[in-house]
Amino acid sequence: MIERVGFIGLGAMGTPMAWNVFRGGYELGVFNRSPAKTRPFAEGGATAYSTPALLTADSEVVILMVTDPEALAGVLYGDVGVLAGLGRGKTVINMSTVSPEATRDAAEAVHAEGGRFIDAPVSGTVKPAEDGSLVVLAGGLAEDLERVRPLLETMGKTVVHCGDIPQGTHMKLVINLMLGNLMQSLAEGMSLGRALELDPQQVLAAIGGGPLGAPLFQMKGNNILSGDFAKQFPMDLLSKDLDLVSDTAGKVRLPLPQTAATRESVNAARALGHGDEDMAALIRVLERLTGREVRD
Amino acid sequence: MIERVGFIGLGAMGTPMAWNVFRGGYELGVFNRSPAKTRPFAEGGATAYSTPALLTADSEVVILMVTDPEALAGVLYGDVGVLAGLGRGKTVINMSTVSPEATRDAAEAVHAEGGRFIDAPVSGTVKPAEDGSLVVLAGGLAEDLERVRPLLETMGKTVVHCGDIPQGTHMKLVINLMLGNLMQSLAEGMSLGRALELDPQQVLAAIGGGPLGAPLFQMKGNNILSGDFAKQFPMDLLSKDLDLVSDTAGKVRLPLPQTAATRESVNAARALGHGDEDMAALIRVLERLTGREVRD
Amino acid sequence: MIERVGFIGLGAMGTPMAWNVFRGGYELGVFNRSPAKTRPFAEGGATAYSTPALLTADSEVVILMVTDPEALAGVLYGDVGVLAGLGRGKTVINMSTVSPEATRDAAEAVHAEGGRFIDAPVSGTVKPAEDGSLVVLAGGLAEDLERVRPLLETMGKTVVHCGDIPQGTHMKLVINLMLGNLMQSLAEGMSLGRALELDPQQVLAAIGGGPLGAPLFQMKGNNILSGDFAKQFPMDLLSKDLDLVSDTAGKVRLPLPQTAATRESVNAARALGHGDEDMAALIRVLERLTGREVRD
Amino acid sequence: MIERVGFIGLGAMGTPMAWNVFRGGYELGVFNRSPAKTRPFAEGGATAYSTPALLTADSEVVILMVTDPEALAGVLYGDVGVLAGLGRGKTVINMSTVSPEATRDAAEAVHAEGGRFIDAPVSGTVKPAEDGSLVVLAGGLAEDLERVRPLLETMGKTVVHCGDIPQGTHMKLVINLMLGNLMQSLAEGMSLGRALELDPQQVLAAIGGGPLGAPLFQMKGNNILSGDFAKQFPMDLLSKDLDLVSDTAGKVRLPLPQTAATRESVNAARALGHGDEDMAALIRVLERLTGREVRD
Repeated sequence: MIERVGFIGLGAMGTPMAWNVFRGGYELGVFNRSPAKTRPFAEGGATAYSTPALLTADSEVVILMVTDPEALAGVLYGDVGVLAGLGRGKTVINMSTVSPEATRDAAEAVHAEGGRFIDAPVSGTVKPAEDGSLVVLAGGLAEDLERVRPLLETMGKTVVHCGDIPQGTHMKLVINLMLGNLMQSLAEGMSLGRALELDPQQVLAAIGGGPLGAPLFQMKGNNILSGDFAKQFPMDLLSKDLDLVSDTAGKVRLPLPQTAATRESVNAARALGHGDEDMAALIRVLERLTGREVRD
Repeated sequence: MIERVGFIGLGAMGTPMAWNVFRGGYELGVFNRSPAKTRPFAEGGATAYSTPALLTADSEVVILMVTDPEALAGVLYGDVGVLAGLGRGKTVINMSTVSPEATRDAAEAVHAEGGRFIDAPVSGTVKPAEDGSLVVLAGGLAEDLERVRPLLETMGKTVVHCGDIPQGTHMKLVINLMLGNLMQSLAEGMSLGRALELDPQQVLAAIGGGPLGAPLFQMKGNNILSGDFAKQFPMDLLSKDLDLVSDTAGKVRLPLPQTAATRESVNAARALGHGDEDMAALIRVLERLTGREVRD
Repeated sequence: MIERVGFIGLGAMGTPMAWNVFRGGYELGVFNRSPAKTRPFAEGGATAYSTPALLTADSEVVILMVTDPEALAGVLYGDVGVLAGLGRGKTVINMSTVSPEATRDAAEAVHAEGGRFIDAPVSGTVKPAEDGSLVVLAGGLAEDLERVRPLLETMGKTVVHCGDIPQGTHMKLVINLMLGNLMQSLAEGMSLGRALELDPQQVLAAIGGGPLGAPLFQMKGNNILSGDFAKQFPMDLLSKDLDLVSDTAGKVRLPLPQTAATRESVNAARALGHGDEDMAALIRVLERLTGREVRD
Repeated sequence: MIERVGFIGLGAMGTPMAWNVFRGGYELGVFNRSPAKTRPFAEGGATAYSTPALLTADSEVVILMVTDPEALAGVLYGDVGVLAGLGRGKTVINMSTVSPEATRDAAEAVHAEGGRFIDAPVSGTVKPAEDGSLVVLAGGLAEDLERVRPLLETMGKTVVHCGDIPQGTHMKLVINLMLGNLMQSLAEGMSLGRALELDPQQVLAAIGGGPLGAPLFQMKGNNILSGDFAKQFPMDLLSKDLDLVSDTAGKVRLPLPQTAATRESVNAARALGHGDEDMAALIRVLERLTGREVRD
């Protein structure tokens, strides 16, 4: 039974995920690049560490939830990195979304030190991270995954074993492709409704009622109508993720014409200054071009 | 209370819709360009007419469910057309999906004869047409709509009043924009999963589990995996509908980059000979280009 | 030898074209919907007519240069239309760009009256129209074309016989596809140069120097740099022409992904209010989105 | 006066470029990863080196013409790399097309050793490389550039100073954006012509005659018509270059919708197995989808 868990990366997603681990009954150690984020954990009974290596030395399992490949490399490698504290049999779970290549590299480095590695990005944003209802998309050995499944289930009720490393990351790319495309599709549909002077609430109801009714549409549709673009899934992150999709598809020689069009709309939204807003701000591009706001 | 209803256009959609009207207790008259389709109705107790004019003369309400603007014009105008049989106070309900302009023209012609007009295209394919679970997107005067609501409800449980004519047609365009885009999005997502050697059933489960989970994805995803492209919503029809979307968006000067990319994929699918298959055959384009089939 | 020529449609293109016919030594009759445009011709020695029928009655050849299919139908049909004045052996040359269907319809109507028909849209804008250096893309019988070739050569040095009707129009669609795509390509290239802080004059020179050096790039590039968007080829016209391309390609089931992307950029430019400016204003879309002007 | 020049990278482009340097009267040293390519040079009077470091030690100027950033790093760094042989005042000219970041990194490394650096990718393919008629797009200090200008002019008559490092590379990205887009535009135009049964030679003539007449269209158009897809500019290279364009545009937040559509067509061509053919094989995608060959 795993008892001591280290958590690295206390951002918008990592913080609620780490709390869920803690509430799940694990002894928790935390590390974050800017240490202020660790304080509430320390006050709550967890242990704050000054380096990834020290945290790793004290943990059976280390969870990584950082922003990008550079941050991942930053916490893994070097004198005070995770690898420096790793011993035989410890498990590293990377829940950050990075490229398949970065995932493979991290796994190799952990394996080289005798550690186990689980590739486990998540589907879901801040709200499900808080509720512990993320979907965990896992790649790795079945045996390694089973050992940490109860731990993962504190963060996400659904843990899907997608295959070997980096199949968790691959599945995440598919999810993000869909996410970006559905978001842009909603933006185009609502904009057309607006241009044709339909009632936007009715548009959302008509979309939501039948086979098209993805929960995302109601959620984001309501945000659009209330002009609430506070980031849950930031445009810049969607941009990064669609870059990964595009690079990966290029490597397997798969054309993705719709995703490419979506990606340029994301670029346009970022050009207009919406990079740090929620991806729902994709609609702003069409609003700006047409001079017609969809908002109620 | 309306008692006598005429139904014109007994195609894949019209036939089950007309049966639902009949089962709803209405006296039913039917007309179809090729009269063989009327026989089962005549045998079941409905009346088959040899011209739209004669059918209209005997009906309080006439429902039109034909393929395109030419067919619509064909049944409305001329010596034996609906208009020739129309009297003051009769109602014409156009449930065909045609352009906003064709809808407006038809409404004007009906109004000029003293008739009432309801613009009422439907969302849903053959299965919901059979189940009477279509969504009816209606435009017209509230008063005119209320008179025929019970009749419409024999075909679709949900009747949404979207505004004046042609707001039903406008709403249908929004729905079809979403439908085409979601279909292409699924094709791209499943193709990426395939290229990355993910289990396609898991891909569908991962898409279906969370905020992306539109019922369409499970339905069409399963069709794709079983190689079942029997048409429910034919590619050629999607093509026609996206042409309407594109023309209409052009008129209100709204750019729709994602929809444009989807439309070219539909063109590609038709070029490959999938025009008469279900729109799920969009995935065939990517399969053909990559030489990798998604099927189980 | 043809001596008496009628010219219908004295717009931005038609006016200089008609003058070139006149300078070529033909007896010229003119008609225009708003008659003010005919005055300079009447003062110069041509004859202004009050209806297309009267003009046609007095002419051996009638040239049509109008804006769209509606205008074409407007001058052809009806009591005072061209057809009403047409006699056996007279020739109608349609130089307007309309759909292949509208061209076929017009040809049939002219043939039915015993006339000859040449489908002869032109490649080139106002400047070449003034210089008589348009490229005439002609469809029709070789014999019919040869009879009017000297006349056509007063307007365009190069007269290409593209085949039967409507091959002139078909060729025009190909040319316009290229024109729109090259214009958007230039907009993207110059915008990238701007974003990367290259000297825009050098960008134009680098594009112009080698295999990419289409004369269009220098012409339109200089217009962009001097902020001169006075219309030579208006955005609204490019929009109309790309609609024809898209419709026609759909009918022959040809996907055109790049042209589709260009078309949405044209929609965006029109949404931003640049419909009545030159097509070079495509760059405005990228300027508006990025907040960076390419201008010197 | 520079006398001794080292040339690294004897591929399809590098070989004729190195010969032009040699013919220009310079003492030439050569290095290539697979040494067989150096033999003709050794037999002709140049010196073959076994490592980049040895070549650099003997040269005043070292020219790099390699495939990608990995190859560039491979020849620059390490015990036997260019940097190991570099002395104060020597000049490294990178003519490979790599990312702006890789260019900056290389320049920094060279500067750190006291060397000078010129960023000098070229526009043009094998034929101009043989003729010495490449366009050299140079970034760096004017003073550094002037010193090597006569040397560069042995390879390309036109040497454009685009600004500091990496402005040569930036200009190259603009050129490649145009190149890819024009190629796809030609593919779409010729395919439309084919679908409409126009004579493809006439299509090329009509495109070539006027403002659209980029020399590329005749060159590649003729290749397409004769079915000659022997690579001059390979599809895989165009793919790599458009990836650089896309990454760079993303970093400066510039949407490039047409280029994105082109890029997916390139992906499709590679999926169909045309990666190692000339970029003119873009037309194969449309041919495959429609089942109609454009070839004469």
